[in-house]
Amino acid sequence: MINIAILGFGVVGAGVAEVIAMNSDSIAQHLGEELKVKHILDIRDFPDSPFADLVTHDSNDVFGDPEVKVVVETIGGAKIAYEFTKQALSAGKSVVTSNKELVATHGVELMELAMANGCQYLYEAAVGGGIPIIRPLHRCLAANKILRIAGIVNGTTNYILTNMRTSGLSYDEALSQAQAKGYAEQNPSADVDGIDAQRKLSILSSIALGGEYVAPEEINTTGISKITLDDINFATGIDCAIKLLAVFSHMDEGKPSAFVAPFFVAKKSQLSPVEGVFNAILVKGNAVGTTMYYGRGAGKLPTASAVVGDVLEAARAPESNAYSKNWHKASERVTAEFGDIKTNIIVRAKAGSKENLTDIFSSYNTNVIWDGNDCSAIVVYDILHKDIDKLVNAVGGNWLHYME
Amino acid sequence: MINIAILGFGVVGAGVAEVIAMNSDSIAQHLGEELKVKHILDIRDFPDSPFADLVTHDSNDVFGDPEVKVVVETIGGAKIAYEFTKQALSAGKSVVTSNKELVATHGVELMELAMANGCQYLYEAAVGGGIPIIRPLHRCLAANKILRIAGIVNGTTNYILTNMRTSGLSYDEALSQAQAKGYAEQNPSADVDGIDAQRKLSILSSIALGGEYVAPEEINTTGISKITLDDINFATGIDCAIKLLAVFSHMDEGKPSAFVAPFFVAKKSQLSPVEGVFNAILVKGNAVGTTMYYGRGAGKLPTASAVVGDVLEAARAPESNAYSKNWHKASERVTAEFGDIKTNIIVRAKAGSKENLTDIFSSYNTNVIWDGNDCSAIVVYDILHKDIDKLVNAVGGNWLHYME
Repeated sequence: MINIAILGFGVVGAGVAEVIAMNSDSIAQHLGEELKVKHILDIRDFPDSPFADLVTHDSNDVFGDPEVKVVVETIGGAKIAYEFTKQALSAGKSVVTSNKELVATHGVELMELAMANGCQYLYEAAVGGGIPIIRPLHRCLAANKILRIAGIVNGTTNYILTNMRTSGLSYDEALSQAQAKGYAEQNPSADVDGIDAQRKLSILSSIALGGEYVAPEEINTTGISKITLDDINFATGIDCAIKLLAVFSHMDEGKPSAFVAPFFVAKKSQLSPVEGVFNAILVKGNAVGTTMYYGRGAGKLPTASAVVGDVLEAARAPESNAYSKNWHKASERVTAEFGDIKTNIIVRAKAGSKENLTDIFSSYNTNVIWDGNDCSAIVVYDILHKDIDKLVNAVGGNWLHYME
Repeated sequence: MINIAILGFGVVGAGVAEVIAMNSDSIAQHLGEELKVKHILDIRDFPDSPFADLVTHDSNDVFGDPEVKVVVETIGGAKIAYEFTKQALSAGKSVVTSNKELVATHGVELMELAMANGCQYLYEAAVGGGIPIIRPLHRCLAANKILRIAGIVNGTTNYILTNMRTSGLSYDEALSQAQAKGYAEQNPSADVDGIDAQRKLSILSSIALGGEYVAPEEINTTGISKITLDDINFATGIDCAIKLLAVFSHMDEGKPSAFVAPFFVAKKSQLSPVEGVFNAILVKGNAVGTTMYYGRGAGKLPTASAVVGDVLEAARAPESNAYSKNWHKASERVTAEFGDIKTNIIVRAKAGSKENLTDIFSSYNTNVIWDGNDCSAIVVYDILHKDIDKLVNAVGGNWLHYME
């Protein structure tokens, strides 16, 4: 029998207990022995839960119990979760987490601590919820140089943007509906301002670079709160959908780049049909070409699926993960400055400004995609971020990133 | 330094050498030491290859060399590849393969042999080419009961079907073009008759069932050679695309089912936009819900990407794979008899036969989707395979499977 403990009995923590109970037979068959939740640590009581008897408020019950081999951290945040994770790893217990903030903030130190104590720190659930992405990147694509990652990694913003389009709602209306349905927090900043996506891109970029840690602070991030229904309708008119994308790029020998921003995504892109709370991540490797991973990026059971998958791995191979490199912190920033990153954009200006637009952007590759009674719009390819605003302001227009 | 050997220097074998050379730095960083191709075994010589010096015709150079830790088998077929794989595993050398025929035919024995000799038999490249699917199924989704798999797993047939639609070609014309482009063999039977898809579904089903081996012979298989341009155009008219799907299902407590057949795939399905030689596999787990994996299902570098990913794993963890169950052979068939499998179909009959159709299928849930001058068509839900032909013949119509 393998004993584990769950720290934090919120949505995902409860999902972990539920998945282990629901699939106990197949899990035991996979593991060769029974998997048992022995303790659940939370400051609250859960008298109506079938797992009420397992709840403790005393962390010593977990960290002082030599029978506990794996600790699931589903507390969230980078404070108490950080302290508890260090305590567990220091005691030689492997830790499995869904906590992207903690991995993105303190991953370097926690992976080192795991290695020093002969145990594992696993975080498949921290990006893409139930979607397998961390392990495929680490192992299946290990023979590749990762050239590009482009992902819809935040279900809340994708739900809001999808709902604006399909129901014709304003941003504020769509946000309120998402909050009413439980898809957005009362303080929605971490989602709508792109902070959650920024953390996830920090994790993906660090893996893509073979462990060179890309701190969240390096990643220029724009959220969706300024996207209007007019933008959404315009996107539909040019056969695009607006999506918040987390983009890593390392196409040539220069510095890699990483940023989070709303994009016009062309209908022909594999990311275009990804709707509602679903996530999808495109990964391009120099051998494999483009691959994509799709599924539920959040939610109780999907996220628990990824957590328990990691628990099974930690239970079978308690020693430090030999297949993935630990992360290491460089003395200076790893990625290019935002202004020096090239991107493709769509610029939209008032009607009749087509000549003006093509004139202003004459030194770039461009493509006029709209020349209507309401406005003109062109795609501008390979423009540096630092040059965008001045040129767009000169035509009195606005712009968003563009993905073909 | 880790030394490996490649058996069979065809397209994929050459791709393996190429990927290792191309990404030698990042591979060495991942592995902590250099990865070196020491021998290439083939009956042919390759005087113009940059790897010409490594070629040997003597298998003892490989199997008798204690420095060779991992053997890549890219010979194909189940004859000499089978003998060489047994020889390598018996010598304690891990074997990595892209050979679906061998895994589907002799996987049970070869996994046992690997375990008995403390080495690994890995086959990520055998299904979906470069797409990570075997490891995600084994590990990331290990906490799930796998309810359903539906995959476009053969690029040749998907290319032919896509080309028939986009270029208005007959089946024979599209097949000739695929042969001219090297996407189909001169004897195309293994692809167009669904045998390749059958082998891949045997592998996926065996993993989905936690190692209960589903033999290819259990899997009823229909290829695409009877699909006409008229079928393709009709599909377009009802907002579907015709795809050859490999389908595993285990939705309830009854026996699982597995079959390969052409389907009408509805436009709203995630599988619908998968075109040309691309592959995509939907996997539904009882915790994670629906996930999808997409990418190049064949080709030199994509398949080599998966092979080398497995080589890195075998090099780091030479002992038998503790995370995945070996397969075991039951005394009788594991899956339901074909006639007893329920499916959804679309039945098409001549114009004016709508009442006749709804009458004949009155004991099923049905949905009239076409009632035109040319023909009538209905969806029939949850019909047993053994009941289909009699009822369809009674209305003088024809049918294909349907996926929503």
